[in-house]
Amino acid sequence: MTAEAAPPTNPSPHLLLAYLDAPYADVTAGVHEQLAKRAEILDQQIEQSDAEFRETVLEALLELARTGHSGIGFPQEFGGGGDIGASIASVQALGSSDLSLMVKAGVQFGLFGGAILHLGSERHHARYLRDVITGKLLGCFAMTETGHGSNVQAVQTQATYDRATREFVVHTPTASARKDYIGNAAAHGRLAVVFAQLVVDDQRHGVHAFLVPIRDDAHRTMPGVTIEDCGPKLGLKGVDNGRLSFDGVRVERDALLNRYADIDDEGCYTSSIEDAGRRFFTTLGTLVQGRISVGGAALSASKVALTIATRYAHRRRQFGPPSSQLEATLMTYRVHQRRLLPLIARAYALSASQQDLIVQLHESFSFDSREPQDRRQLESRAAGQKALATWHTTEAIQTCREACGGAGYLAENRFAALKADTDVFTTFEGDNTVLMQLVAKGLLTQFKEDFNDLAPIDVVRFLATMAVGTVVEKTALRPLVERLRDAVPSKGDDAGLLNLRYHVGMFRWREEHLRANLARRLKRGIDEGSDPFTVFAGLQDHVVTMAKAHVERTVLESFVASIGRADESIQPLLEKLAALHALSTIEVDRAWFLEHGRLSAARSKAITSMVGRLCGELAPLSEQLTDGFAIPDELLRAPIAVNA
Amino acid sequence: MTAEAAPPTNPSPHLLLAYLDAPYADVTAGVHEQLAKRAEILDQQIEQSDAEFRETVLEALLELARTGHSGIGFPQEFGGGGDIGASIASVQALGSSDLSLMVKAGVQFGLFGGAILHLGSERHHARYLRDVITGKLLGCFAMTETGHGSNVQAVQTQATYDRATREFVVHTPTASARKDYIGNAAAHGRLAVVFAQLVVDDQRHGVHAFLVPIRDDAHRTMPGVTIEDCGPKLGLKGVDNGRLSFDGVRVERDALLNRYADIDDEGCYTSSIEDAGRRFFTTLGTLVQGRISVGGAALSASKVALTIATRYAHRRRQFGPPSSQLEATLMTYRVHQRRLLPLIARAYALSASQQDLIVQLHESFSFDSREPQDRRQLESRAAGQKALATWHTTEAIQTCREACGGAGYLAENRFAALKADTDVFTTFEGDNTVLMQLVAKGLLTQFKEDFNDLAPIDVVRFLATMAVGTVVEKTALRPLVERLRDAVPSKGDDAGLLNLRYHVGMFRWREEHLRANLARRLKRGIDEGSDPFTVFAGLQDHVVTMAKAHVERTVLESFVASIGRADESIQPLLEKLAALHALSTIEVDRAWFLEHGRLSAARSKAITSMVGRLCGELAPLSEQLTDGFAIPDELLRAPIAVNA
Repeated sequence: MTAEAAPPTNPSPHLLLAYLDAPYADVTAGVHEQLAKRAEILDQQIEQSDAEFRETVLEALLELARTGHSGIGFPQEFGGGGDIGASIASVQALGSSDLSLMVKAGVQFGLFGGAILHLGSERHHARYLRDVITGKLLGCFAMTETGHGSNVQAVQTQATYDRATREFVVHTPTASARKDYIGNAAAHGRLAVVFAQLVVDDQRHGVHAFLVPIRDDAHRTMPGVTIEDCGPKLGLKGVDNGRLSFDGVRVERDALLNRYADIDDEGCYTSSIEDAGRRFFTTLGTLVQGRISVGGAALSASKVALTIATRYAHRRRQFGPPSSQLEATLMTYRVHQRRLLPLIARAYALSASQQDLIVQLHESFSFDSREPQDRRQLESRAAGQKALATWHTTEAIQTCREACGGAGYLAENRFAALKADTDVFTTFEGDNTVLMQLVAKGLLTQFKEDFNDLAPIDVVRFLATMAVGTVVEKTALRPLVERLRDAVPSKGDDAGLLNLRYHVGMFRWREEHLRANLARRLKRGIDEGSDPFTVFAGLQDHVVTMAKAHVERTVLESFVASIGRADESIQPLLEKLAALHALSTIEVDRAWFLEHGRLSAARSKAITSMVGRLCGELAPLSEQLTDGFAIPDELLRAPIAVNA
Repeated sequence: MTAEAAPPTNPSPHLLLAYLDAPYADVTAGVHEQLAKRAEILDQQIEQSDAEFRETVLEALLELARTGHSGIGFPQEFGGGGDIGASIASVQALGSSDLSLMVKAGVQFGLFGGAILHLGSERHHARYLRDVITGKLLGCFAMTETGHGSNVQAVQTQATYDRATREFVVHTPTASARKDYIGNAAAHGRLAVVFAQLVVDDQRHGVHAFLVPIRDDAHRTMPGVTIEDCGPKLGLKGVDNGRLSFDGVRVERDALLNRYADIDDEGCYTSSIEDAGRRFFTTLGTLVQGRISVGGAALSASKVALTIATRYAHRRRQFGPPSSQLEATLMTYRVHQRRLLPLIARAYALSASQQDLIVQLHESFSFDSREPQDRRQLESRAAGQKALATWHTTEAIQTCREACGGAGYLAENRFAALKADTDVFTTFEGDNTVLMQLVAKGLLTQFKEDFNDLAPIDVVRFLATMAVGTVVEKTALRPLVERLRDAVPSKGDDAGLLNLRYHVGMFRWREEHLRANLARRLKRGIDEGSDPFTVFAGLQDHVVTMAKAHVERTVLESFVASIGRADESIQPLLEKLAALHALSTIEVDRAWFLEHGRLSAARSKAITSMVGRLCGELAPLSEQLTDGFAIPDELLRAPIAVNA
């Protein structure tokens, strides 16, 4: 498969979108249609005060609930649609409109509702889910504390079981144990899923989730609960983030979400998972949907930005040949092409892997028979995709803003809210750098261990027990090098540069080399007697680099594999996009390939030239490519993209 | 000079700031003191509506004027201080507080006042300057139009001389000729400096500046003038950007700012500069102060962000060795060190070149006898510094926000406003990409031509007239390579890596190689018969790359040269910072050095390791390094940096 063939001169955006959003194109289109009807929320975001806009977003959330989109992922017996994959596609599509609405929906239906669904048992489902789906019961997901964000296992909130009254006493022992940044807490939430250290008879059992009412039916704060408003934020002004503290708040025994652990009638703690750490991460693992939703919604936001900037680049003229009366469009300029085209290609690549991930999630959660190892791989993939997609989004929106100059700075042209609202996506639902370390741990242990639960010392111990060779897959280094040699005719410097097998080979080689190398270094550190925390901390940048190389490889493979599913007429175009994506990714990291003998200087330069050439070839088609993202004009809304 | 020596364990922030802000340390301190007294503006920026905050910023501006800081750069006879360098240092220091105030002050005193001072003659000075300095007369700088931002020479607003009435008729012929994004226009400005195409007796004389009243003493819009509000923006909500249109507005003959051209008593056009293009760019050239101010203020904003993120990194703990009760500070982690330390080093480097630039500006404007070539070099340097400093600022603030996680997302911690307000700095006072092309043109023609005025075709023609060899300076390639060999003992892979002569040599070699190469390619394109616009457009990315390499070299040289002026006790520390700055810059571009045979694979890897090592060595000193930026706590204001 090579990208040598000429792309169609006028590809149909309709075919592109059918490819991009498969197999949930109808879900995306349905949500977009709904959002387009309520597109004035984008103006209200600009015009209203924070307090007003919070109410606007709540109204929009309840409207969304009335359309049934909020229940897609919940069981049919409680009024839901029973389709997990479609529910993610639906939240993802919310990313095309106001992102406060997307985040508020994510908190209510994804995190709060999802916790009840996945961590609770039938009694919780029967009691709450119907009201969660309709928005009659609004809730919070109170995990993060002031003192502990990434290190959730160390949260300090306590839930002590009182055998006498059969109640839990939920308590905030210190200021740093205060629940912080909690969406839906400052204004609207009535019930909170609170993560706390469970103590029974002076014995600690680790973090568990409890349902704690924070406001009563009249919306008064419950006794013993203190609610503060986090105050103004960089963005997401329609989300009411707050802080929760509990002063000996008593809740009934049923408040424990008891899917994996419970207190029996004798007041004894029981759990189907013996190890406390593993229990905790099994608990968290069921919430993988949140990460996939955030990555998907971020990607949608990047598509809005790319569509606006691309349209502007085809309309805006500045400077030009003296011979012409008309100035040249911005898209004529090489620097402008190089800014936008690789980002468009990457949005396509990430879409392909995102859609694969949704399908994988759907299967994993729809059939209970899966191996734990599969679930771990899903979690790892979700973590990696979330990180890459949200980093991409931050970069893409920034680049698009700059590419639109002063016009890009006006709020009406959408970048202001897009930038501000998505900025925290790299941080929440798992800090990207922390997520990358999680991916790396999984790879280093080949998912044989539950990597979520692995302290650095465990990873190192795991490595110490095995020969380094076994850490590297059987497909690894030497045979791969051979395959690469086959794929690359050694004639000219740019021979085979458009061969997609060559690209995939390069990405695989890099990943496997980095993985073997890191394993070796970790082992060496231990063998030399250093303590594991120090060894791991000292190699932290290598860990993140390796994980990123892995995720980039899986994204490229998804993209390449997905092309075959597209209509034949657009396949040559998609192959060119894949080549641009692969080569521009290699270009960014070409120093590494040069350092490791995988690129000659001449070939490295040829890659840079080829990226420029592909940008030039695709630039005239860039508007069709972004029209393939199929964001309705009502949602693009930017006068520079929609008018004239 | 090498950075091998151990740095002091407890460097004095006082000595660091004396070094950083020299020779204007007292000016910076004075402005900071003033700003600290009015630091509640930072809260008001969060709490007030756009309309309220505009008035707050206006009040703060007038307060500033009362302290005398606004007049520093104006002649003493009109109540000014007559010190141009100090005036830039003063605007630069405004970047440590609210940036709407900095921009509004820049518009009023820098652009509006500066245009009257530099483009007007004594009658304008006598009539206006005193009121400009006190803020009694508020004004606008109306250059950019909806249709023309970067290509100012093509603005469409017309000023037609009416010989009969001795008046100019200022007119907006089309919607795209509307003056756009004009600061001070929407609410407060009374007089505008309007850039328009001058037409006398049907003859066009190019762009000139005119003083046009837009509001009367009662603040009513003048007849024939239409003022619109640009509406909400991504940031800078305290700046009242507006749009101005003129419908046959008549102004007296004296309205022409006539330093370089005039209409004489007979109604004839006269100018001391014959060529219209050169006249225009001489006109613009006097406004170089704006660019230097913006670059400096951006740098100040980056220092605020770096100080907050560094303090947080020393306070915030997350995860840690199982053996310890206390979790590890974020600054313990290699990835965190690598995020922040190179940015701190770059802020030091850019400060050194910024201070050099201010001194150069001061001399250029204080003594009229300078060569035009010197002025061109100053303009080029200002353009390059502005681009690098504002790009740095965007990157630094984003990185710092992410490094503070969720806390970084709260408005109270400053990043929200810092990010939003500075985002347009890469665009205004010259789009960075366009500025880089201007730098390149100057270099290609060795400042013998007025590069501002050079169309691509002129550059190419210039090159075509000379042998390529002469484009490259005498110090160029071969002898330089020899000098490098001397500087780098060829023993180990990291031998000499800390030698500052080696760094400077690498930067020079890259610049000169890129310059010679680009000149060759441009010539070849022409020799092959392509049209110059196409040749230049096709090489646009090379043009920008070359210019960036040049500016990075001048910044590094400034930094290295400045170290000798510092107190001896901190010189070892500054040398380490310079080494980190140089090596991390080379690291980013190491692919280029590998491709061009200037780095071996082993040495390239050694550079990456050395950057990590230097980050680790400097991390424990990072709080002192950012305390050297000397931003008062009142202005830092972020609870995560100032409390506990």
